[in-house]
Amino acid sequence: MRMYDVIEKKKLGEILTDLEINYVVEGFTKGTIPDYQMSALLMAIYFRGMNTEETLALTLAMAKSGDMLDLSKIEGIKVDKHSTGGVGDKTSLVLAPMVAALGIPVAKMSGRGLGHTGGTIDKLEAFTGFNTDMSEEQFINNVNTIKIAIAGQTANLAPADKKLYALRDVTATVDSFSLIAGSIMSKKIASGADAIVLDVKTGSGAFMRDEADAIKLAKAMVDIGNGYGRETVAIVSDMNQPLGLAVGNTLEVIEAIETLKGNGPEDLMELCLQLGTQMVLLSKLTEDEEEARSMLEETIVSGSALAKFKEFVEAQGGDTVYVDQPQLFEKAPIIQKVKARASGYIAHIETEEIGYATMMLGGGRETKDSPIDLSVGYIFKKKLGDFAEKGETIALVYANDEAKLVASEARFLDAITQQKEAYKKPNLIKCLLK
Amino acid sequence: MRMYDVIEKKKLGEILTDLEINYVVEGFTKGTIPDYQMSALLMAIYFRGMNTEETLALTLAMAKSGDMLDLSKIEGIKVDKHSTGGVGDKTSLVLAPMVAALGIPVAKMSGRGLGHTGGTIDKLEAFTGFNTDMSEEQFINNVNTIKIAIAGQTANLAPADKKLYALRDVTATVDSFSLIAGSIMSKKIASGADAIVLDVKTGSGAFMRDEADAIKLAKAMVDIGNGYGRETVAIVSDMNQPLGLAVGNTLEVIEAIETLKGNGPEDLMELCLQLGTQMVLLSKLTEDEEEARSMLEETIVSGSALAKFKEFVEAQGGDTVYVDQPQLFEKAPIIQKVKARASGYIAHIETEEIGYATMMLGGGRETKDSPIDLSVGYIFKKKLGDFAEKGETIALVYANDEAKLVASEARFLDAITQQKEAYKKPNLIKCLLK
Repeated sequence: MRMYDVIEKKKLGEILTDLEINYVVEGFTKGTIPDYQMSALLMAIYFRGMNTEETLALTLAMAKSGDMLDLSKIEGIKVDKHSTGGVGDKTSLVLAPMVAALGIPVAKMSGRGLGHTGGTIDKLEAFTGFNTDMSEEQFINNVNTIKIAIAGQTANLAPADKKLYALRDVTATVDSFSLIAGSIMSKKIASGADAIVLDVKTGSGAFMRDEADAIKLAKAMVDIGNGYGRETVAIVSDMNQPLGLAVGNTLEVIEAIETLKGNGPEDLMELCLQLGTQMVLLSKLTEDEEEARSMLEETIVSGSALAKFKEFVEAQGGDTVYVDQPQLFEKAPIIQKVKARASGYIAHIETEEIGYATMMLGGGRETKDSPIDLSVGYIFKKKLGDFAEKGETIALVYANDEAKLVASEARFLDAITQQKEAYKKPNLIKCLLK
Repeated sequence: MRMYDVIEKKKLGEILTDLEINYVVEGFTKGTIPDYQMSALLMAIYFRGMNTEETLALTLAMAKSGDMLDLSKIEGIKVDKHSTGGVGDKTSLVLAPMVAALGIPVAKMSGRGLGHTGGTIDKLEAFTGFNTDMSEEQFINNVNTIKIAIAGQTANLAPADKKLYALRDVTATVDSFSLIAGSIMSKKIASGADAIVLDVKTGSGAFMRDEADAIKLAKAMVDIGNGYGRETVAIVSDMNQPLGLAVGNTLEVIEAIETLKGNGPEDLMELCLQLGTQMVLLSKLTEDEEEARSMLEETIVSGSALAKFKEFVEAQGGDTVYVDQPQLFEKAPIIQKVKARASGYIAHIETEEIGYATMMLGGGRETKDSPIDLSVGYIFKKKLGDFAEKGETIALVYANDEAKLVASEARFLDAITQQKEAYKKPNLIKCLLK
């Protein structure tokens, strides 16, 4: 088999065989296929696309390029949840203990934040002593005993995807549905869950700004998961504004704890219930959607989700005093009001810019190895559809440095558009795909 | 400027600026733009194409990446001729002395053969002592004194094109009209001629098998030449069978000499007259097409073209005894009849295969550094439209090795298709583009 022929075939719009796709992924990972041939193939894939079978073969080849987690020692149906990334998205922190409180095993691999999006692992590190670098044995043991564990991704999870992504990133071939879907799903499949719920974000703070694109991506991922025999469901959800009110690692953890106590923002709670319902259904705990939702609501009302969260933090070495008294978390020393520049209804939030404004405070990473300041961020007081008088507080900013605050606040305000006419806030849930 | 943005722009189908194209060609030639980004851009160009302005900018940037020949010291309008390559194409050997005999300066850079196509430089080396490795001064001096010089391409002619071609060759991005046109024309422009006549071959022995593709390529090249102020004309000519009867270096030289003596095959003579007419018109010797053709015919009848050829061979160190007595050329020792496998009209010649059959005798190169046996080849006795009885001689094969002969002859015969019905031979000249 020659890489030249594979490139030529895809260039002409033909379907690649499993054998050809395996040859490409293996050769590229080993280094026998050079970058310059791979990037030509990637560009041809951008133009010609890949069908469901090709995308599945690519995903499996990438998943198998490294360690495949064996979660068979965990009892019950393991349901994973994955978000395509957004701003203020602390769903996992709330949802994982809710589901675990129902006895469903949550064995989750999470990532760190990059660019304008945050990551669950960074947020959990707000708890002093919290450890996400666990052995496979410890990880499995925790899930079996308390039904929940969240670990950082191991270095050798789908290395082909890692290498491929680095090449796509410099050759303008990131935005191919097959390649994005394959990239995400290869890691999910290697992570070993039995069923997967995907939260595909769309809007001004999402990778997929366009709703139709988000649905297309969701469909591609659901096809891969189901094609591999891992029951997969996707919810396409709104990311035209941050989820909840808090943006910034520690601020988001506090909001997550408040939500577990039943005092959280409505949109965050609702998304957790929607995603959680699908997880409960996939776990076969019940077949009835309404019942699933009621069970989840009960974990909040009864306090069992909060108790599970505390148990989880303790099991991974974190100081649980913060769960009981979130006010003890270290906050940034400078707290200021961000005031509306004009009077009007908030009609657009350029959410990606909100993420970058937070990054400018020190709360996000420009590159994978950048240090991060967990204490900084924003708390929204007004969101889409709300009216704000000129000078009225629309958010609080938490900063460690006056100069950074000034620059960040300007970028924050630039991202907010007000209008005279009333504005109807967007629907949180766009669609559900099975 | 970032290469990433240039790739993205072309991927989206936008037009690249001269500045961007220069940045790409310069960066790639210097090595600051890596192969993997260049190949992604090349594939995007394959899908999106380049318009006339972009193709011209690319061509000029490649031409200027190395030495630009200055032919201003040569008096008169320098007209170059270029063929896209075929089998049995000895046109330059006949045409150059015909045109030079009229006083038009012919300052020609030629290449060597590769794969199934032959090259003028190889053929000229059939003359003992012939030297194509000349200094620029000697080259210019020869043209000024005897109106004709043919030299091998200098190492530093359009190095960007050389590097780019090597990458295209391994990334399945050779077949882009803009890139092919740019590759050819960059070398023509760097070679310094004032006007250019292109012979674009089409058919079973040509790079462009499809006639519409050949016309498209011819148009792209004419646009580049004229766009740069070098008056350019293209003839699209038939390559569904070898040109003339001889295939193989020395055999072709003998046929060229016979043609200069007025005894050549009709198709070869006609193509020389057609291309020559355009060269005479571009040289401004006359504006009248019929007159131009008559002048060229007269160089054959009067013997002035043959005399010029002899003068040319002598000026470049070749032994002219072969011009007077072509029978003295060393020929391969084994000469056999190739006999028709069936009775019928010859309706198809897979001409590329004829080139490869000749290569198998030792008469062509597999790689740039392969040695070459000038003495081997084929002389056709029957061509398209001719009737051959089963067992009748359709060609003579000249070989140095019995085993090679057997393998080559089988490939040769496999390339010939006969049919019961009469077959009309293809028109030699497909179209003329100005």
